[in-house]
Amino acid sequence: MDVEKAAETSPDNFRRRNVYSTPDGDNNSNEPPTPSVEKLFSGKVVPPWQSQLTLRAFVVSLILSVLFTFIVMKLNLTTGVIPSLNVSAGLLGFFFVKTWTKFLEKFGVLKQPFTRQENTVIQTCVVASSGIAFSGGFGSYILAMSSKIAHRGDKGFQHDIKDPRLGWMIGFLFVVSFLGLFSVVPLRKIMIIDFKLIYPSGTATAHLINSFHTPKGAKLAKKQVKTLGKFFTFSFLWGFFQWFFTGGQTCGFTNFPTFGLKAFASRFYFDFSATYVGVGMICPYLINISLLFGAILSWGIMWPLIETKKGQWYEVQLTQTMHGLQGYQIFIAIAIILGDGLYNFVKVFGRTIFGLYKQFQRKDSGAILPSDGQPNSEDSASQSFDDQRRTHYFLKDQIPNWVAVVGYVTIATVSIITLPHIFHSLKWYHVLVMYIIAPMLAFCNAYGCGLTDWSLASTYGKLAIFVIGAWAGASHGGIIAGLAACGVLMNIVATASDLSQDFKTGYMTLASPRSMFVSQIIGTAMGCIISPCVFWLFYKAFPDLGENTSQYMAPYGAIYRSMATLGVEGFGSLPKNCLTLCVIFFAGAMAVNGIRDFLGNKWARFIPIPMAMAIPFYIGGYFTIDMCVGSLILFLWQCTNKANADAFGPAVASGLICGDGIWTLPSSILALAGIRPPLCLQVVPRLKS
Amino acid sequence: MDVEKAAETSPDNFRRRNVYSTPDGDNNSNEPPTPSVEKLFSGKVVPPWQSQLTLRAFVVSLILSVLFTFIVMKLNLTTGVIPSLNVSAGLLGFFFVKTWTKFLEKFGVLKQPFTRQENTVIQTCVVASSGIAFSGGFGSYILAMSSKIAHRGDKGFQHDIKDPRLGWMIGFLFVVSFLGLFSVVPLRKIMIIDFKLIYPSGTATAHLINSFHTPKGAKLAKKQVKTLGKFFTFSFLWGFFQWFFTGGQTCGFTNFPTFGLKAFASRFYFDFSATYVGVGMICPYLINISLLFGAILSWGIMWPLIETKKGQWYEVQLTQTMHGLQGYQIFIAIAIILGDGLYNFVKVFGRTIFGLYKQFQRKDSGAILPSDGQPNSEDSASQSFDDQRRTHYFLKDQIPNWVAVVGYVTIATVSIITLPHIFHSLKWYHVLVMYIIAPMLAFCNAYGCGLTDWSLASTYGKLAIFVIGAWAGASHGGIIAGLAACGVLMNIVATASDLSQDFKTGYMTLASPRSMFVSQIIGTAMGCIISPCVFWLFYKAFPDLGENTSQYMAPYGAIYRSMATLGVEGFGSLPKNCLTLCVIFFAGAMAVNGIRDFLGNKWARFIPIPMAMAIPFYIGGYFTIDMCVGSLILFLWQCTNKANADAFGPAVASGLICGDGIWTLPSSILALAGIRPPLCLQVVPRLKS
Repeated sequence: MDVEKAAETSPDNFRRRNVYSTPDGDNNSNEPPTPSVEKLFSGKVVPPWQSQLTLRAFVVSLILSVLFTFIVMKLNLTTGVIPSLNVSAGLLGFFFVKTWTKFLEKFGVLKQPFTRQENTVIQTCVVASSGIAFSGGFGSYILAMSSKIAHRGDKGFQHDIKDPRLGWMIGFLFVVSFLGLFSVVPLRKIMIIDFKLIYPSGTATAHLINSFHTPKGAKLAKKQVKTLGKFFTFSFLWGFFQWFFTGGQTCGFTNFPTFGLKAFASRFYFDFSATYVGVGMICPYLINISLLFGAILSWGIMWPLIETKKGQWYEVQLTQTMHGLQGYQIFIAIAIILGDGLYNFVKVFGRTIFGLYKQFQRKDSGAILPSDGQPNSEDSASQSFDDQRRTHYFLKDQIPNWVAVVGYVTIATVSIITLPHIFHSLKWYHVLVMYIIAPMLAFCNAYGCGLTDWSLASTYGKLAIFVIGAWAGASHGGIIAGLAACGVLMNIVATASDLSQDFKTGYMTLASPRSMFVSQIIGTAMGCIISPCVFWLFYKAFPDLGENTSQYMAPYGAIYRSMATLGVEGFGSLPKNCLTLCVIFFAGAMAVNGIRDFLGNKWARFIPIPMAMAIPFYIGGYFTIDMCVGSLILFLWQCTNKANADAFGPAVASGLICGDGIWTLPSSILALAGIRPPLCLQVVPRLKS
Repeated sequence: MDVEKAAETSPDNFRRRNVYSTPDGDNNSNEPPTPSVEKLFSGKVVPPWQSQLTLRAFVVSLILSVLFTFIVMKLNLTTGVIPSLNVSAGLLGFFFVKTWTKFLEKFGVLKQPFTRQENTVIQTCVVASSGIAFSGGFGSYILAMSSKIAHRGDKGFQHDIKDPRLGWMIGFLFVVSFLGLFSVVPLRKIMIIDFKLIYPSGTATAHLINSFHTPKGAKLAKKQVKTLGKFFTFSFLWGFFQWFFTGGQTCGFTNFPTFGLKAFASRFYFDFSATYVGVGMICPYLINISLLFGAILSWGIMWPLIETKKGQWYEVQLTQTMHGLQGYQIFIAIAIILGDGLYNFVKVFGRTIFGLYKQFQRKDSGAILPSDGQPNSEDSASQSFDDQRRTHYFLKDQIPNWVAVVGYVTIATVSIITLPHIFHSLKWYHVLVMYIIAPMLAFCNAYGCGLTDWSLASTYGKLAIFVIGAWAGASHGGIIAGLAACGVLMNIVATASDLSQDFKTGYMTLASPRSMFVSQIIGTAMGCIISPCVFWLFYKAFPDLGENTSQYMAPYGAIYRSMATLGVEGFGSLPKNCLTLCVIFFAGAMAVNGIRDFLGNKWARFIPIPMAMAIPFYIGGYFTIDMCVGSLILFLWQCTNKANADAFGPAVASGLICGDGIWTLPSSILALAGIRPPLCLQVVPRLKS
């Protein structure tokens, strides 16, 4: 969740919970060990890798990519909270191909049955493609470069900008997005076969896909798709209905002061967003509670207190700038994000090193065991059969190492030449240095992700902002250089961990690593074109994008720019006492994380997560209300009928998210066409009568 | 439904469908004949009639009476559409006493177990009491006398008014409400035992109560009560939430232009009323569709057409009066109501005469059979056992005929003396004549109701408006005289059929006729005090009551006054061409009814009911949208899970109606205390930006 979370906590945390909760994909340790999965599938032929890459798979992937890019982009540009959309992608992919093959079967022209390998290819392609919508930084570093965001920030750097253009964005993505793939390919055997890393999300996705292709699972999936479809329709129509009442800046249900006008002024209201109710249903309770807690702490307590110092701590006319209240909001949020990020970086990095150390120690003694030292829960007989079969297929199709090396070096060279042309302040030696370090970071991230399901992509990105920004220097366009470097590093590192997860999924569904790799490449290429186009649509359709009062507030634009400013300018730019507060919150975030780890799972689930708490600091609490409503719905549902809620909760949530998300397509087209909603719903103080 | 329907079509139509649909109360002829009910209860002792009348029963009755009076009053004063609340009353009565006895049992101080006879007593008392809220005419004839309504009508009769005062309303009700009871008491044996009249509503209520006292039925009832409670809470909170946004005449969800401002101007919108969604769930589909059809026909087609004749047919400045568009609305609605009423009067009266004729013919030949000639569906063995037992208990406690005669004559005398003091234009001879005819009409109505479940109370009332109004004459306060006469006749006739239904219920639950009679007397007395008080609260709390733009529009106030005006003034008061239109619609209503009867049930269910169509003619279509939403919810629910929907649909509907209804208590208190809602939700055309 959030640009940060999406990369670090969530797609991970969320993905895991989310997918695991579908009955057939469940591999909680409470459950009795499942019998061999592969024995169920032993009657089915595994097609060669070329046959796994069907045209229909990529057509479906393209459709879903566009759908999910819209959704992710909307989330990026509203609050930055992005849940895992794996279940939706899985369900919809399955649904589309299954419908298509059934249709062909009826007419007797079906040439190739729908296999789980093909399903994995679709899933991989869609994840790769829609991943770009996030790691492309349209809600964060690219938006942070724009003049829109710059004009709201520090006066000194208003010319250190680069406004988004379709051309350079596509070019930029093409030269940086493929490097991660090549850097992780040679290591796949070590991580999947030798280290037997868990990759919880990848494993969960594989379970989901495997379950779809058993008769029982297919039946459930069909029902889930139906549920998804219902809520998709509802959510789409609700979005459509809402549209009519938004004829004006302050109009519509999104500005509905559910708890009164005073609470509304402090951004506490339920905004009737189907998306965030759905997101709340997917996110763990703790995340939602943390968000709400953060909203209350910041907008309920801290900001009102700081506002009483108006005139003392900052000048009255600067309230709505970085030098006023907004400065406190953004920099305290950054402090928490960095504190939490640093803590987890150290923790995950430590575990990575420790894991590697144990791995090699064991390798020396000849034993290959699960890297985290926990015994595998599957029973050994079935494991050996499954493992044999899976290892066989995984090793059958090799990708020669020279392909990886040549690919990496070629793209890196192109990249080093072209990037300084796109961003003039980013020099070729900045890029070169990053490309030398990147494979190592990519590996670390892929390994850490395999252990903990925790991707540190945006933390590496933030490091790059500070390091490269400071290196380039304030007077030499350090802000753009830093933000561009952030993009370069984040793309490499994020795709590396994504591909590793996919390899794990492929391993468990007997999909060939080659088809995985090709699918990821095609998916990434799709993403490099689709994402900028979708962003462009939003950017043109909603001219108030990035503004404080807009529905498309894109909070991370301002946050990333502020980080870059901090990097080149130092702490001098902060308003009075802000640094002190930042230090307190930075330390506090680390301390709370430490306490969480120290107390263990039993108590940690009652302690809020600092990173989640920081998100509403700048945006306000409205979306946390939505998400808590989602949590509440899920909670009540689970109380009434747990099995039902577990099976259909994710489908309902996906339906809500997808329907509202796809409504943004017609809504932005209407905006572009200049068709304005006819009505304005508003709540005003009572009328005099 | 509607003042009209509530008395004629619905409490009847609705009650039947409603109660019949609870699984244990089901006696559809499709079902196999149920085994003897009384054998199930043979182990249980029937307490003597004095013990059936417990204090706790009347305490619970009092609580429920207040609750239901509020609900009925709200319905009276908003649209006049009143569904049957028997199931809610049954469930809640059972719930309260059961909770109480369980509580006492726990502490070992329970003296008397809760019997079905006691339950019947509660049901009878509550129905009698809340019946007054309808037959007391607070939404119709009493309101029609007020200056509020008069000032909106014909200029000529603005002084022929009688404003509501608590004192005279209570007095009036006390002197007219008990006559019906005494007039029907001597005939109970003939109707229940000899004629074996069906009384569908009474039978259904008895089935419901019997089912509560079987172990299986009690379990279901407990679940139903839980469901009711949930939706009650939801509906109450929703009402509370809505309140905050109603700070102003045009504010709030009740003025939400769901389908746009143009549709809103024609009163087509969904007004988010939990009450009417619930009412829609209780009313048969055909009623709801008829309402919607009527709304489209009138507000969608006819009124716009008539408005094009503005200036030709009526003067522009008179649009909002009886001499303008509103005149057409009201008088065409009256024409349909009278047409439908007359048709059904003739039909039911004909059947009554025919039934009586056959009855006596059979009696002559010694056989006592069901009066309608249909064989009874219960199998004969169980029938004879059940019947024996029931007849035994029904005949055990007699009410001497002299009590009835003395009671009737005494009250009639008091009434003849006092009524002319309350309504100066109503002379003693008017009252005397009515009281001579009334017992016959009461018997006819009770008999017809036993045959068809169709009470003609408000039709008799309307007859009285015309006859007595014309007799008194325009220059001698004929309007008030007519309306008062309507009240007198309606009260007698309505209570007569209610008590007969109760006797049937008592017969089937082995409750003594004496306890029924006493319960009805106590209930009526309660109602005579509670109803005027509740009306008084509404009347004081909402000063815009009866106005066209008010939430409490009370449409039948204007309709009844217009009828009275028509009665004393003749057709001369109608705007141009209105009489022609009225004649067409009067004839049309009869014709449609004739066609419905001619085609039989199979096709009749596709032909709208004229009476239902007439209701939105004046009020507009907004509540029909609510009700169709209710229908739609029920329909979808039935498609998904029919058994569930049938068992819990009425409970959900009751919860929605009761919660919203009871919210009117705090809301009117807030209004009286001068606490105004803080916000105003409004929808305006789009803002210029």
